[in-house]
Amino acid sequence: MERSPLAPASFPDLPVVGGVRFAATAAGVRYKNRTDVMLAVLDPGSVVAGVFTRSATRSAPVLDCEAKIGQDSPDGAAILVNSGNSNAFTGKNGEIATKAVTAATAQAVNLPEARVFTSSTGVIGEPLPHDRITAKLEELAAGLDPAGIEDAARAIMTTDTFPKGAGTTIEIDGKSVTIAGIAKGSGMIAPDMATMLVYIFTDAVAPRAVLQTMLAELTDRTFNCITVDSDTSTSDTLLLAATGVSGVDVSGNTDFRDALERVMLDLAHQVVRDGEGATKFVEIAVTGAASDTDAKTHGLSIANSPLVKTAIAGEDPNWGRVVMAIGKSGAAADRDLLSIRFGDILVAENGWVSPSYSEADAAAYMKGDHIRIAVDLGLGSGRTTVWTCDLTKRYIEINADYRS
Amino acid sequence: MERSPLAPASFPDLPVVGGVRFAATAAGVRYKNRTDVMLAVLDPGSVVAGVFTRSATRSAPVLDCEAKIGQDSPDGAAILVNSGNSNAFTGKNGEIATKAVTAATAQAVNLPEARVFTSSTGVIGEPLPHDRITAKLEELAAGLDPAGIEDAARAIMTTDTFPKGAGTTIEIDGKSVTIAGIAKGSGMIAPDMATMLVYIFTDAVAPRAVLQTMLAELTDRTFNCITVDSDTSTSDTLLLAATGVSGVDVSGNTDFRDALERVMLDLAHQVVRDGEGATKFVEIAVTGAASDTDAKTHGLSIANSPLVKTAIAGEDPNWGRVVMAIGKSGAAADRDLLSIRFGDILVAENGWVSPSYSEADAAAYMKGDHIRIAVDLGLGSGRTTVWTCDLTKRYIEINADYRS
Repeated sequence: MERSPLAPASFPDLPVVGGVRFAATAAGVRYKNRTDVMLAVLDPGSVVAGVFTRSATRSAPVLDCEAKIGQDSPDGAAILVNSGNSNAFTGKNGEIATKAVTAATAQAVNLPEARVFTSSTGVIGEPLPHDRITAKLEELAAGLDPAGIEDAARAIMTTDTFPKGAGTTIEIDGKSVTIAGIAKGSGMIAPDMATMLVYIFTDAVAPRAVLQTMLAELTDRTFNCITVDSDTSTSDTLLLAATGVSGVDVSGNTDFRDALERVMLDLAHQVVRDGEGATKFVEIAVTGAASDTDAKTHGLSIANSPLVKTAIAGEDPNWGRVVMAIGKSGAAADRDLLSIRFGDILVAENGWVSPSYSEADAAAYMKGDHIRIAVDLGLGSGRTTVWTCDLTKRYIEINADYRS
Repeated sequence: MERSPLAPASFPDLPVVGGVRFAATAAGVRYKNRTDVMLAVLDPGSVVAGVFTRSATRSAPVLDCEAKIGQDSPDGAAILVNSGNSNAFTGKNGEIATKAVTAATAQAVNLPEARVFTSSTGVIGEPLPHDRITAKLEELAAGLDPAGIEDAARAIMTTDTFPKGAGTTIEIDGKSVTIAGIAKGSGMIAPDMATMLVYIFTDAVAPRAVLQTMLAELTDRTFNCITVDSDTSTSDTLLLAATGVSGVDVSGNTDFRDALERVMLDLAHQVVRDGEGATKFVEIAVTGAASDTDAKTHGLSIANSPLVKTAIAGEDPNWGRVVMAIGKSGAAADRDLLSIRFGDILVAENGWVSPSYSEADAAAYMKGDHIRIAVDLGLGSGRTTVWTCDLTKRYIEINADYRS
């Protein structure tokens, strides 16, 4: 598939995170002539935190990860991910396949099964050919490489048009702490299957509970603030692993927290930039809401509105649709206190179009590929920013014509 | 615009409802060479019930109707509707325009202003040229005709590709009672502007409170069970007027209630059949849910999922997307108790594809233009049916390219 017009120029140069090694291979799960399995192995002493899809029909690997994530262990850990088949809605066979993959991975890297986390992404409802994966585990274990993260990013792609990575190195008390992460996803879900998977690694020291709390809070402000099509995958998984190799304890350290948030936001934005059929990256900043929760409700109502998204695709500064999306969201709004801006252009205020508004200026603004819509509710101090992309004919093509 | 492929062959032959007269004219509110204002006048003794959009940014005419609807009056009533301009998000000017139109209508038909209900549908945020409407009121009042309902249905169209009407005559205690209604709408909302407006008339006798309760209950099972694009208008209005001319009191009469529900459902289905870009009429029947509310949550989650709707457009029996939409809805579901049918074809059960499932049979079924998806949750006795249409490139074209 053609690379998204919103893709970054190239995969970033990521720092090597001490205590993590990667390998990738082509197991032929579904795709031919490309890598489709990645293995990441974490040194002993690593801790792993995770957040998962809230779907009531979540996949066997997600259920397995959820059961394991809340445990401390002196052992290392492994993450094994395949693309091409999601092992979702596969009945009891799903558990059998997950068990087979985790058991074989545990044996290959000499870890207890409880320390092996797996994800699967791809077609729903077809049995996972787990023997193709397990047949490659010795090869994967033998090929582990601290610099292998880009290959790992490529192996987890499905309908993605580019591999997604982000990282940073910060100084804390004169010592370096590294963070590097990879992600895949190009719809919230798509047929065969644009689940969002994210794996982030750091050499920081952090107790598991600290890491879990930080991850949950930052996820709410990053990955939970993006939407491509309002649909939610049965397989979404986000794992954060800290190896502790840097020796720097980051409990309560806001510099680390900010750096992690930047990495998460960068990856989240890349998922939006690879949104199926996307031609515009759209930022929706909501301020003045009665609460932060209300701000997010309004923001996602605008971001998920097919009419707002098609207007942006058509480069039409159709602020009436933004008013509509605010009105329908269910959160508090007062028509006469609202103001709406497209970029720096004040579009509407006092319950009507602004006297300074020029349709020609707004139409010119909409030609850009980064659109910023700012809404102030005029009610309180609640605020949030969410991100989405436009809705184009290409989205329909990809999703109407893909499987059949 | 080309007539929807799902449109009925012609406008139905509607019964004349005693006590109501209609007129329509071309006032040039926005459109050229077509009618765009309709007036309906109800005889003294008529009662009017109504339900309205819950949008927080509802239009000036909606706010005015809401303020008037809860009152009894010995007078008749008038309904005045214009297309082309929604008079929504027009600040204080909106109230001024609504006041001007209601006052002029009241004068033309000799009623108090409190008995004049108005609706406006069309572009948001532009001042309503109310003088063009008021200039036509004498002409409208002079042209009132008991048989004018089809012309009225045409005058309220915006992006609709066909006029929508439904009606019936039933016998109660040896006397005839008639019901006839008209509707417009082709998206839940669209830019210039597919608001849903519905006006239903009957010659039954019913106290206002009885009529209002019945209307609210039936709306929940009819108009609130349809969706085109999940977007909600700032102007949605549904008025039900009973003239009492038949002399038949229908309080507590289930035959009348059933007949009214059939008329409402017929009109609701016509709105779906005129869904922007629609090529398939889709019925989603949910049973076995933990409650009726849960059933509706699941049904609308499926009906609003862009991935389900694009799969139907692509004639792809992609039941994995139905599983996804159930999983994300937030209502109770158990993966292993679910069953899914496309038409009579059992697709999935026991947490996996059915052993009897044939992709070829399902693909053949999807070629039809009336698609029925039945989901049983296996949890309880909650049930509902909702209706929608597919999501096609034409929807994007209409909404991305319309205003600019």
